[in-house]
Amino acid sequence: MARIVGISGSLSQPSRTRALVEEIAARASHQLHAPAEVIDIAGIAAVLGSTVSYGEFPPELSEAYEKVQAADLLVIASPVYKASYTGLLKHFFDLLDPKALVGKVAILGATGGSDQHAMILDYQLRTLVSFFSVYTAPTAIYARDSEFAHYQLTSDAIRQRIAVAVDQAEFLLKHPQVPQVLVA
Amino acid sequence: MARIVGISGSLSQPSRTRALVEEIAARASHQLHAPAEVIDIAGIAAVLGSTVSYGEFPPELSEAYEKVQAADLLVIASPVYKASYTGLLKHFFDLLDPKALVGKVAILGATGGSDQHAMILDYQLRTLVSFFSVYTAPTAIYARDSEFAHYQLTSDAIRQRIAVAVDQAEFLLKHPQVPQVLVA
Repeated sequence: MARIVGISGSLSQPSRTRALVEEIAARASHQLHAPAEVIDIAGIAAVLGSTVSYGEFPPELSEAYEKVQAADLLVIASPVYKASYTGLLKHFFDLLDPKALVGKVAILGATGGSDQHAMILDYQLRTLVSFFSVYTAPTAIYARDSEFAHYQLTSDAIRQRIAVAVDQAEFLLKHPQVPQVLVA
Repeated sequence: MARIVGISGSLSQPSRTRALVEEIAARASHQLHAPAEVIDIAGIAAVLGSTVSYGEFPPELSEAYEKVQAADLLVIASPVYKASYTGLLKHFFDLLDPKALVGKVAILGATGGSDQHAMILDYQLRTLVSFFSVYTAPTAIYARDSEFAHYQLTSDAIRQRIAVAVDQAEFLLKHPQVPQVLVA
């Protein structure tokens, strides 16, 4: 049974990004009959941000990395800050072993004030995740702030896009992978 | 007289990235007869990383932002972590007012283990800086780890590239700017 872990890169609580991650993770959980949980960067921001060396992780951070490493499907989303993912979401990946995610599958998402920032999904977040040899669902999910009300998703168009991305992730999860040998 | 501020995005001390920033800042300082100083993300990492809200900055962070805002020329460089700039360098910019750098000039640099990562300068760091309406020297400086010895730059080819970038920055600084009105 696949394990699903969402990562919300927002620094705010409540958060539209977190709502998006939960929506995608819940859909995947239902379809794949698999448990899902969400790591909220906002919840571990201070601990994460003040950790700058490898291998000396405080418990909250170690727990988060254990969950991520045990996952088969990751749902990773960020609000758009300064034309990219948040710095602390990047820092979460900076501290992660480069081999920790090899062969996992991910669905990518982002939230932002206008459609002008949608391409960060392909030019920034997909680039980061691909570095870790993660297979990504080709359909990524960008939701404008206006597609939420009271920090809950209200858009059926986005829900349809989520359904497509979950189908793609299921396809990736259910097919045997190319054997992968990491090369320097 | 132009003021020059370097920002080194490395989390390590000593740091090749910091050496690169200092080399570029020193060259610019000499050529522009201007004072230069360097902000080292490694030196403020814990304070920076644990700051997640705007407007409640600890003194070390406020001082760094004051220096950046008073600068005319910024020298911004990062080591390549996971196919991009460091997360904490991004977090430094995440917390900065979007209007704080309008019209400033920047020289961009990066250090990495192999030439394969050189394009982060144009696809990641220039993108981030351009968000802030900063004019960038078209020549960016990528230096491999093997171009340093004992954390000091040893490459004449890189020094020549630095000279070109400083000339470009001088050109940008000495010409009147297009009047800029920020639009939403």
